[in-house]
Amino acid sequence: MNKQEIPYKIYLEEQEMPKQWYNVRGDMKKKPAPLLNPGTLQPLKQEDLEGIFCSELCKQELDDTTRFFDIPEEIRSFYKMYRPSPLVRAYCLEEKLGTPAHIYYKFEGNNTSGSHKLNSAIAQAYYAKKQGLKGVTTETGAGQWGTALSMACSYFDLDCQVYMVKVSYEQKPFRREVMRTYGATVTPSPSMNTEVGRKINAEFPGTNGSLGCAISEAVEAATKQEGYRYVLGSVLSQVLLHQSVIGLETKAALDKYGIKADMIIGCAGGGSNLGGLIAPFAGEILRGEADYDIIAVEPASCPSLTRGKYAYDFCDTGKVCPLAKMYTLGSGFMPSPNHAGGLRYHGMSSIVSELYDQKILRAVSAEQTEVFKAATQFARTEGILPAPESSHAIKVAIDEALKCKETGEAKNIVFGLTGTGYFDMVAYAKYNDGEMTDYIPSDADLEKSFSQMPVVNL
Amino acid sequence: MNKQEIPYKIYLEEQEMPKQWYNVRGDMKKKPAPLLNPGTLQPLKQEDLEGIFCSELCKQELDDTTRFFDIPEEIRSFYKMYRPSPLVRAYCLEEKLGTPAHIYYKFEGNNTSGSHKLNSAIAQAYYAKKQGLKGVTTETGAGQWGTALSMACSYFDLDCQVYMVKVSYEQKPFRREVMRTYGATVTPSPSMNTEVGRKINAEFPGTNGSLGCAISEAVEAATKQEGYRYVLGSVLSQVLLHQSVIGLETKAALDKYGIKADMIIGCAGGGSNLGGLIAPFAGEILRGEADYDIIAVEPASCPSLTRGKYAYDFCDTGKVCPLAKMYTLGSGFMPSPNHAGGLRYHGMSSIVSELYDQKILRAVSAEQTEVFKAATQFARTEGILPAPESSHAIKVAIDEALKCKETGEAKNIVFGLTGTGYFDMVAYAKYNDGEMTDYIPSDADLEKSFSQMPVVNL
Repeated sequence: MNKQEIPYKIYLEEQEMPKQWYNVRGDMKKKPAPLLNPGTLQPLKQEDLEGIFCSELCKQELDDTTRFFDIPEEIRSFYKMYRPSPLVRAYCLEEKLGTPAHIYYKFEGNNTSGSHKLNSAIAQAYYAKKQGLKGVTTETGAGQWGTALSMACSYFDLDCQVYMVKVSYEQKPFRREVMRTYGATVTPSPSMNTEVGRKINAEFPGTNGSLGCAISEAVEAATKQEGYRYVLGSVLSQVLLHQSVIGLETKAALDKYGIKADMIIGCAGGGSNLGGLIAPFAGEILRGEADYDIIAVEPASCPSLTRGKYAYDFCDTGKVCPLAKMYTLGSGFMPSPNHAGGLRYHGMSSIVSELYDQKILRAVSAEQTEVFKAATQFARTEGILPAPESSHAIKVAIDEALKCKETGEAKNIVFGLTGTGYFDMVAYAKYNDGEMTDYIPSDADLEKSFSQMPVVNL
Repeated sequence: MNKQEIPYKIYLEEQEMPKQWYNVRGDMKKKPAPLLNPGTLQPLKQEDLEGIFCSELCKQELDDTTRFFDIPEEIRSFYKMYRPSPLVRAYCLEEKLGTPAHIYYKFEGNNTSGSHKLNSAIAQAYYAKKQGLKGVTTETGAGQWGTALSMACSYFDLDCQVYMVKVSYEQKPFRREVMRTYGATVTPSPSMNTEVGRKINAEFPGTNGSLGCAISEAVEAATKQEGYRYVLGSVLSQVLLHQSVIGLETKAALDKYGIKADMIIGCAGGGSNLGGLIAPFAGEILRGEADYDIIAVEPASCPSLTRGKYAYDFCDTGKVCPLAKMYTLGSGFMPSPNHAGGLRYHGMSSIVSELYDQKILRAVSAEQTEVFKAATQFARTEGILPAPESSHAIKVAIDEALKCKETGEAKNIVFGLTGTGYFDMVAYAKYNDGEMTDYIPSDADLEKSFSQMPVVNL
């Protein structure tokens, strides 16, 4: 199709929005390995999880056969406030690059949380409310998840307690104010509020924190308060289930215009955006119906897929959470503080890890300065200032479009633009001032971190 | 129509986007008074303006009879990156308020500049480029216009020099970084770069600046550099012309669903958003085709319509710009620094002023803390954190919806949500901490400012 036929932005109609989430595990012959009880090292059951998570979410977490879950009407109503999100044809970027490739991006940043995180936040808040809880606790890295959860809790009138990774808390003071505007309390992590926080502060004085630490604190806070549960913004299978709304809409928008994607590119931290974006496409590959080149892009400073081990590991630094089999750098891995924003998690969603192991997707890593270079180029041509996280996908999409320029191929490149960078201006300022640096962990660093992983023989 | 029939967001199709801007002056029997040459006090001609503005924009400025101007294809292409903007049915807010009113808002915040300002920025940059200029200078208050212009200049590869009101420059350091990311240079105003800046600094040491000062500096900078012209983000008739795209889309979206607006509410600083939003509706009133209750909402701290004089005044503090007949507080009026964000201009667009004088619209003012209260309520129910400026319209829309609750009327209330508040978190923090105060200028303050206005007998 030509420019006249495909609009700049493909919007689905409200009635075309997905009515069910898609659980890609239902189409996997070899399933992701089960979560393990950290005490007994036995596969977790519903009752093991219910002290931490809402019951309905435990069910979703453990169910690896049901392919579709109905999206409750209350969640669909909330979705309608900011969804369907547009699938944008990057005409201006294509022209700037002089590429024959057709570039599309699914833009999830047009809501106040600034990212796709709201898709799962509203679902988790809904199930917490339905269960009659008082509130929820969580961690946040770049602050997008915390903001999303604050919005969702405010909508359902639930208390919201956020442990925010210290480096982000300090770099993004305004994120805190957005969360407070939505009525949440925000605590920098590691804090002195929890046993595990006090322990980590004693062990690593002056630490910048990590998602792993913040998770441990939030879990402890949830289990020690009556009527509270813990919620998590990425990694878990339930989160990838909710995020499948991204991929389902993307697929529907492409189908509406008869476009067959050749490549699908997403940034990968814990894996929720990537897992959601690729779900229906991975499903087609798994069912032998189609083929796609799926690429996960991770930061070179936190390279769980490209340099991690595929093994059982702790999900959090404090080792209070279940064990998951995943590509991991070891739960003791602390990303460099010079790394901007999110994508700081030591592990990768079990589903994405297993799909990667089955070669349904491939992975590449990108260094920070080249990511910000791509971000700036994108901002100037497409008019959206992207989040640093999302910009990892932009970087590789541009690389692939330039390869097409060499080969003359008119590939359809689809990538996920997970969010906006309005709260990342400290990092942009560093880049603008030429003061941004790159960091790649040494093999010795990783070996040290690997050596602290649990030994599980299953 | 009921909930099933009207979606949460009404999007026009790309081909339904306006192909022409609408010049409401063409339908006014009594035209806005002409701009005057500040030296001769004679009506300005094209040649008087060409040293300051691009030629094509001078034509648009002076033409008060042509009703429609074609939108050039290059501008339409840019518009397609972020337009059409949605007309949103505020179902969640209606439910929260328990009002029978139907509330709609035209949301202009879904672009990186965060507001409607981009609609005129891209037009002005286009005409500057077409004229072969090297660059443009401008002022910015809250930073939205500067950001918009930076984006537009980057798209057309023009140099962009921004004088930013000092109080905003300090309260919004991240805005500066967004502009720099788009390649602009940003200078706090009053600066020591220009004669007028040095003079204002000497006269008012430690001043927080004002839009009036920044305009003077930007104009001086434009006229003293070869290949530069000055551009302005509000007040001017050309800007209202470009902003008519807001109203035209709003009208088209309402018409698509057979909705007849009863009230149209917009915030008013210099008048560009309001003038653009109401243009086609005011046109219908002027042509005797329909009736609407149009309300301009201004801050009680800078109340040009509700407490100003309708007279010729200087457009800038430095008195280098043409004189305009407008509702004004006097060009020497300095808004209190405790007033957050934009809407700080001492005057009001000549078009809006004349429409107000002809009683085509009415005006009310709102105090800062009640505006932030409405903003927070809106954020929590509609999921969008609004700009302080836009929240003036929200405040009055909520008030009107609550009146409908009393009377049982199911009015159709349409308001303009001009932008997002992501760069206004210093002000939100003040509100969250209970430290926000209100300021209303005394009659004596205004009398003093009025006494410095020029005497023009036309």
